[in-house]
Amino acid sequence: MKNPLLDDRDLDFQLRAVLHADALLTLPAFAHVSAADLDAMLSTWRRFARDVLLPTYRPMDEQPAVLRDGGVVCHPAMKALWPQLVDLGAITASRPLGVGGQQLPLTHVTAGTLYLMAANLSANGFAGLTLGAGHLIEAFGSDALKAELLPPLYEGRWTGTMALTEPQAGSSLADVRTRATPTAQGHFLVSGAKLFISGGDNDFVENVVHLTLARLDGAPAGTRGISLLAIPKKRRAADGSLVANDVKVTGLIHKLGWRGIPSAALAFGEANDCHGYLVGEAHQGLKYMFQMMNEARIMVGANGVATAAVAYQQAVAYAKDRVQGRPPWAKDPAAPPVRLVEHADVRRQLLRQKAIVEGGTALVLRTAHLADLAAHAAEPAQRHDTERLLSVLTPLTKTFPAEKGFESCALAVQVHGGYGYSSEYPVEAWLRDQKLNTLHEGTTGIQGLDLLGRKVVADGGEGWRALARAVEAGCVRAERASVPAEWTRGVREIAGVLEEATLALAGKALEGDVPGMLLHSADYLDAVSTWVVAWLWLEQAAAVHEAPLRTAFHEGKLRAAQYWLATELPRCRQLAALCVAGEDSYAQVPEEGW
Amino acid sequence: MKNPLLDDRDLDFQLRAVLHADALLTLPAFAHVSAADLDAMLSTWRRFARDVLLPTYRPMDEQPAVLRDGGVVCHPAMKALWPQLVDLGAITASRPLGVGGQQLPLTHVTAGTLYLMAANLSANGFAGLTLGAGHLIEAFGSDALKAELLPPLYEGRWTGTMALTEPQAGSSLADVRTRATPTAQGHFLVSGAKLFISGGDNDFVENVVHLTLARLDGAPAGTRGISLLAIPKKRRAADGSLVANDVKVTGLIHKLGWRGIPSAALAFGEANDCHGYLVGEAHQGLKYMFQMMNEARIMVGANGVATAAVAYQQAVAYAKDRVQGRPPWAKDPAAPPVRLVEHADVRRQLLRQKAIVEGGTALVLRTAHLADLAAHAAEPAQRHDTERLLSVLTPLTKTFPAEKGFESCALAVQVHGGYGYSSEYPVEAWLRDQKLNTLHEGTTGIQGLDLLGRKVVADGGEGWRALARAVEAGCVRAERASVPAEWTRGVREIAGVLEEATLALAGKALEGDVPGMLLHSADYLDAVSTWVVAWLWLEQAAAVHEAPLRTAFHEGKLRAAQYWLATELPRCRQLAALCVAGEDSYAQVPEEGW
Repeated sequence: MKNPLLDDRDLDFQLRAVLHADALLTLPAFAHVSAADLDAMLSTWRRFARDVLLPTYRPMDEQPAVLRDGGVVCHPAMKALWPQLVDLGAITASRPLGVGGQQLPLTHVTAGTLYLMAANLSANGFAGLTLGAGHLIEAFGSDALKAELLPPLYEGRWTGTMALTEPQAGSSLADVRTRATPTAQGHFLVSGAKLFISGGDNDFVENVVHLTLARLDGAPAGTRGISLLAIPKKRRAADGSLVANDVKVTGLIHKLGWRGIPSAALAFGEANDCHGYLVGEAHQGLKYMFQMMNEARIMVGANGVATAAVAYQQAVAYAKDRVQGRPPWAKDPAAPPVRLVEHADVRRQLLRQKAIVEGGTALVLRTAHLADLAAHAAEPAQRHDTERLLSVLTPLTKTFPAEKGFESCALAVQVHGGYGYSSEYPVEAWLRDQKLNTLHEGTTGIQGLDLLGRKVVADGGEGWRALARAVEAGCVRAERASVPAEWTRGVREIAGVLEEATLALAGKALEGDVPGMLLHSADYLDAVSTWVVAWLWLEQAAAVHEAPLRTAFHEGKLRAAQYWLATELPRCRQLAALCVAGEDSYAQVPEEGW
Repeated sequence: MKNPLLDDRDLDFQLRAVLHADALLTLPAFAHVSAADLDAMLSTWRRFARDVLLPTYRPMDEQPAVLRDGGVVCHPAMKALWPQLVDLGAITASRPLGVGGQQLPLTHVTAGTLYLMAANLSANGFAGLTLGAGHLIEAFGSDALKAELLPPLYEGRWTGTMALTEPQAGSSLADVRTRATPTAQGHFLVSGAKLFISGGDNDFVENVVHLTLARLDGAPAGTRGISLLAIPKKRRAADGSLVANDVKVTGLIHKLGWRGIPSAALAFGEANDCHGYLVGEAHQGLKYMFQMMNEARIMVGANGVATAAVAYQQAVAYAKDRVQGRPPWAKDPAAPPVRLVEHADVRRQLLRQKAIVEGGTALVLRTAHLADLAAHAAEPAQRHDTERLLSVLTPLTKTFPAEKGFESCALAVQVHGGYGYSSEYPVEAWLRDQKLNTLHEGTTGIQGLDLLGRKVVADGGEGWRALARAVEAGCVRAERASVPAEWTRGVREIAGVLEEATLALAGKALEGDVPGMLLHSADYLDAVSTWVVAWLWLEQAAAVHEAPLRTAFHEGKLRAAQYWLATELPRCRQLAALCVAGEDSYAQVPEEGW
């Protein structure tokens, strides 16, 4: 039976035929891993996601965590799920052997994680946050801090959070106010309030460690004065026991989706007894956080893909099952009605979802693959080059699945008709879940500024050139595989259009007009994403042409590639024109004109 | 203080400066109405919506109706709201004097209704459904039926519903199975099941009348065998008392939005004692329903506009109030942060919402204005012409605010950042509400087929020509008012592109290729909607240029017009090209290729 979460055929195709991802196993870092190990991992995660996680999704959506006696009470299902997620490797699969991880390629771990996210993004969220917190300590913490915090986090005895956002500052981390005052004992006394802290507390492990951005006494203003501290809910007393650390959950946020994982408001140090432990050096907090951000943003993209994927699978299953109506040209009212999947406009809605979901999957896996190469490639030059391309692709990987995935989930609802609007079917919940992905870990607006204002123009345009080279390599592959020539031509033409636009925009900045350069950063992000996904559809088409046998699955791939290249790619021209022309409508609205 | 529901300046501008709607008062049908009456009505409705309805919105969203002892228990607020809505004229404002209505122009009533919908769409929904049911009886019922049912409906002592959908048939009304067997007493014995019946029961009036599609014994198959019956929850016994009529609420549908109005599953005649009363003639049910459908679809469009409008107003207020971050080029971290409304990409999101909301308002009011003229214009030829244009605009009016309004609500959430995802702010609820509008009263897919397969090609293309003439009249108005010439040129160029596409598509049908004609009906609908809204932005720009004084509000109007014409209108070319080329990706996906 077909997997209701993601199309197994697609994941296998993308990993093997498109990416040749098993070639990563030739790298020294993965000498201990065999292809069979990776198959077994993927197969175990798939089974667990489908059989264990998915059945808990709806109950957790319907019964969110509550605050009781100062502590967060999660859905009871989490007590049983958590040790299973830990055993599965949901926290440590990609971490090094030396810290108790399995040191598997991020590419394959990301593929497996797509299933966990598709099945129950909230349950997996606790694991992802614990991984993120652990990874920060692993990368930047002192040996003492690592010894104290890494084992309980990576063994799943404790969970972790990322505590960045404050009520008054939102995305503007330069305005973080949480204060940390040094003490003679080496720890800091922390006071401040954090908001929207996912997994901010729970009742299924004994402790929670908050990786927190704060400002040491006397720190410079702005982002250069932000430090990273580990603040546990309970700290270790002199006798080794765990005692309360003056971390208070002041409220839970009722929210549109992700209802299985609490989003908390936290207060540190209301009793002036909250100990924090500096991670790495003072004032380097934002730098540390952003070194982890690539991975966090890939995971947001993965979440967008996973949520759109499970909604798409459900829509396909429904459209193949539900018999309703006749084609508009059918004149005989006694003729039997047909299945939804036979109506042209339903097919349009399904193929658009497929193009978004599988195009997004290609983007997320490609980015994870670059992260593997950037970390583990044998040659320093290759590590440098892949790191460069990775940094350019990251804002796209974060945003495309989030923005288009929301549209895709809305189409999945639409395919279900009135039933899609009811909670009898889960599609409405996935639509609610998906909206968060355009907001957290940097909004879409912030990703646009990151792409255009930083990434493509870095080092005199090296960022852009790295991307252009990668796309051209895909075009060459497609030509060799005899993909229809007009498809490759389309991608190359838009490459030229966008290169010209990028140059023109960079020119504005050089002339001192940074606002003019950035005015259409959202359109630029949209155009580059659309083109990059077109490139990845071209690569998928190439992989189909390279295959010895042509299946119905392959045929569907070619039609989705055709769809994206014919209907979406041409939009890039107009978006580029808006960027270059500096169309100024929204710049010019007067205060009372809204 | 600014109205949080809709921009009062905009409604006044659209009614007066754009539509010159008060000229309707010269028609004999409105001889009893003065402009002051209309102002008073609008002002009363605005105040009621803001002061009375809006505060009940959130409580009703948070506490949906429940089924208790076989009856529906609505939120207690409805008991107080309902008589006030009735007194306001929410049911009868547009109905004739002769049946107890106020016989006001639909244009102005629609403007007022926008406020009621923006404030609490569920509460207003009960009134809208009662109006719809009453209107059907008024138009097609026998004198006896009118005498029995109209007074309690129009006086708000009873409510009404539209009972079309059945579980197995969904949108496919040809497959309605509910049976009605004639009796010697003149009534019919009804049996069948209906689903998704909004306002299907309540506890704040004594009776509910379901205007139901059913099939009389021996009726022909398909849509030609469908009759319209009025089926009350309680029927009149011989002694004049009301007794149960074997109408059972078998369930309530938990749903994504519109949570203040129940959506019910109904069973008629489980005890073989459900009396139904034929409305009009046998087998004419679908025709009757569709004669009312124009108005119902305008009201769906109005709802889409209203929901997007209140979300937009909230987003503007938030963006002007919330101080967060600095422009990307600000280098001094000690500089004070700026308001969200000063960030370029937030301004883009706000202007896109404004363009959708006010463009949608123009479309809805234009359509309502045509409905007034079609019903009441002095000359039969003008009634005929406006009826023609009305029928072409109706699928656009139904769809544009629903589809783009959903995007607009998502942008309103996005402007709020993480707060938008929390229920601390109501934007997340409006996003949930909005999704229904693409589904009910004919899905977007059905509207596309209606526009392309029926409306524009009617009578050898008379539908298209009526629309093209109206748009050209707008272009002439814009020229006279000295609107920038390239704006008018843009609209005219796309008129030519779409006319060519329409001819090409009609040609496919003439050659027998109806599937080919309809393959891209959704793209055709999107293109024509985008162009029509561009025309209406041109008319708004013309009205600004015609004004003796230029205000900040006017300046905002011109910028929104510029935005739509520069960024959206050009999309029509590519959409038209897809329609004509018959891009066949989704037609070709094999069964196992999804």
